Amino acid sequence: MKVDGRHFRSIWLEPDGWSVGAIDQRRLPHEFVVARLTTADEAGEAISSMLVRGAPLIGATAAYGMALAMRADASDAALDRAGKMLAATRPTAINLKWAIDEMQRALAPLAASARAEAAYARAREIADEDVEINRDIGRHGLGLIEKIAATKQPGEPVNVLTHCNAGWLATVDWGTATSPIYQAHDRGIPVHVWVDETRPRNQGASLTAWELGHHGVPHTVIPDNTGGHLMQHRMVDLAIVGTDRVAANGDVCNKIGTYLKALAAHDNSVPFYVALPSPTIDFRIDDGIRQIPIEQRAAAEVTHLTGRTADGRIETVCVVPEGSSVANFGFDVTPARLVTGLITERGVLNASRAALASAFPERSGVG
Amino acid sequence: MKVDGRHFRSIWLEPDGWSVGAIDQRRLPHEFVVARLTTADEAGEAISSMLVRGAPLIGATAAYGMALAMRADASDAALDRAGKMLAATRPTAINLKWAIDEMQRALAPLAASARAEAAYARAREIADEDVEINRDIGRHGLGLIEKIAATKQPGEPVNVLTHCNAGWLATVDWGTATSPIYQAHDRGIPVHVWVDETRPRNQGASLTAWELGHHGVPHTVIPDNTGGHLMQHRMVDLAIVGTDRVAANGDVCNKIGTYLKALAAHDNSVPFYVALPSPTIDFRIDDGIRQIPIEQRAAAEVTHLTGRTADGRIETVCVVPEGSSVANFGFDVTPARLVTGLITERGVLNASRAALASAFPERSGVG
Repeated sequence: MKVDGRHFRSIWLEPDGWSVGAIDQRRLPHEFVVARLTTADEAGEAISSMLVRGAPLIGATAAYGMALAMRADASDAALDRAGKMLAATRPTAINLKWAIDEMQRALAPLAASARAEAAYARAREIADEDVEINRDIGRHGLGLIEKIAATKQPGEPVNVLTHCNAGWLATVDWGTATSPIYQAHDRGIPVHVWVDETRPRNQGASLTAWELGHHGVPHTVIPDNTGGHLMQHRMVDLAIVGTDRVAANGDVCNKIGTYLKALAAHDNSVPFYVALPSPTIDFRIDDGIRQIPIEQRAAAEVTHLTGRTADGRIETVCVVPEGSSVANFGFDVTPARLVTGLITERGVLNASRAALASAFPERSGVG
Repeated sequence: MKVDGRHFRSIWLEPDGWSVGAIDQRRLPHEFVVARLTTADEAGEAISSMLVRGAPLIGATAAYGMALAMRADASDAALDRAGKMLAATRPTAINLKWAIDEMQRALAPLAASARAEAAYARAREIADEDVEINRDIGRHGLGLIEKIAATKQPGEPVNVLTHCNAGWLATVDWGTATSPIYQAHDRGIPVHVWVDETRPRNQGASLTAWELGHHGVPHTVIPDNTGGHLMQHRMVDLAIVGTDRVAANGDVCNKIGTYLKALAAHDNSVPFYVALPSPTIDFRIDDGIRQIPIEQRAAAEVTHLTGRTADGRIETVCVVPEGSSVANFGFDVTPARLVTGLITERGVLNASRAALASAFPERSGVG
């Protein structure tokens, strides 16, 4: 999407034809800094340090990391070593493993001399495929926004609430939850986004607000506590969030707090949608609430915040009393009964076992 | 309650017999500083700068402010002037107006020479009455905790979730939502409190965690997004929150985000209680959701946070991108249907028009 009028992806091949550019997301929203990755180790470090984050973007970064590895040394040993090193950068990202496997499958049969070029080509394809999937998600979600827009007075915006960052910064481009929003905005449909701050890591305030603002989409940052009140007073037309994993029964695992917004949407008859690329569906998991393990993360994500001071310094401060315990559950699971629909690259589906199996028969094992 | 073994109220008469001590709550949780108020203007400044906050404590501070005014000048003009000055310190606090009216009613009939002494006596009574009411709230709420404790294994704590600060720092002592917790803890019933951080002003992380910690009550600070997940997984036995205003129909206005926790409690059959002194009931308001006006507060409360750096400095940082809009609704209204009970100084009541009118016939106009 755009940053102040210029189109960016979150990761790209530099004009030199071999090094890789990426937005340093650790510096957002306070500084816009582009990192240049020149080795597989630098790509691995970019993932582990969260210079890049978001499952699809991590996958694309690992793919480019493999290409950088092949450029330096295209031996079987180097192919194996780069795969292992990159796979160890983040513990649970499913796209990471998928992208590395995909690269190794494509490269292993080739002669070493052909591997570097093939690796760059396949990495580019992986990135482009992500962009295509997200564009399709946006196209299907756009229909939902258009339908609401048709009920509004001229100029009156469609109000969308979102949680966390399922934006273009988490993918290669478009994002998942944000893709319908960008497509509506780019077509001139007035949209306004309520952006949940998304404690504890503040990805809403730091990333979603930043990317919407730089693309020119009207938005308002709100504390996570606010959405219920807004829905109660008809200030939200629909909610769209992303997801880290969808169970076969339609239960949705996403950033902690998603469940609370789904409850409020249900209580106020506000449609609640989840946008996802189909690889996010985990057909091995039958019951999301009982079976999806919830990661507990570092206390420092709750106790400390980083921001800029009035005189422009970046400082990290602690906001919890010394001696107080802290808990940091990264995700929660929203039961399928609270989800109005799943916006996938193949259309908007009911959050049910039957609808998922029917739309993705090749993956559900029932096709 | 206790601060590291020594008993404190949030406001008190100093040993000199005329100046007033109060905990400077703006400095918590990073510094424990006692302020000494020596004039009515200083008392007014303490309220408007939020050195003291919480409706009951604001009332007590205003009462002592009137006493300080009378000590300097006990004329009719001074009595009137002090009342007007103090009433203007915070726009909506109902206890503030009540305490000032009460002081003026007590003092106006007296000779000027008798006013200062009478003012100190009445201010002390107002403070003591608050302590009594809160102790009674705690006594009634204690029964709820004891009943749950009886179902636990020996040593297994009763897990209470609370939102914002309805603690002793918001009152003169005991607090409202915290009073049952302190009474249970002081009797040796194992309790553990999940403390919602409570964005945007972080009163949970800053004040509730601080006061529970210094009294020795086990607790864990959580982002506001977390409570739904905890309730879904049976990690919360009951929720107890405070309130700024209860409508005649039992709808509860409290810190923004309370409604989301009430929804999660209802969805998971977790009892959800609201603790309140009866003056908080507004019998003129029939329908809380439609009729209680919701204050919109300064954006800076959302965009900026204050904390301590690793090297001990206190810094304020901005955590929202430049150019992003921010909304800051201070409160929301939880419909009575989601409230298990109202813990008042006269017992635990249903959140219904009939139960409120029957318990407080002298105020409801139906007695």
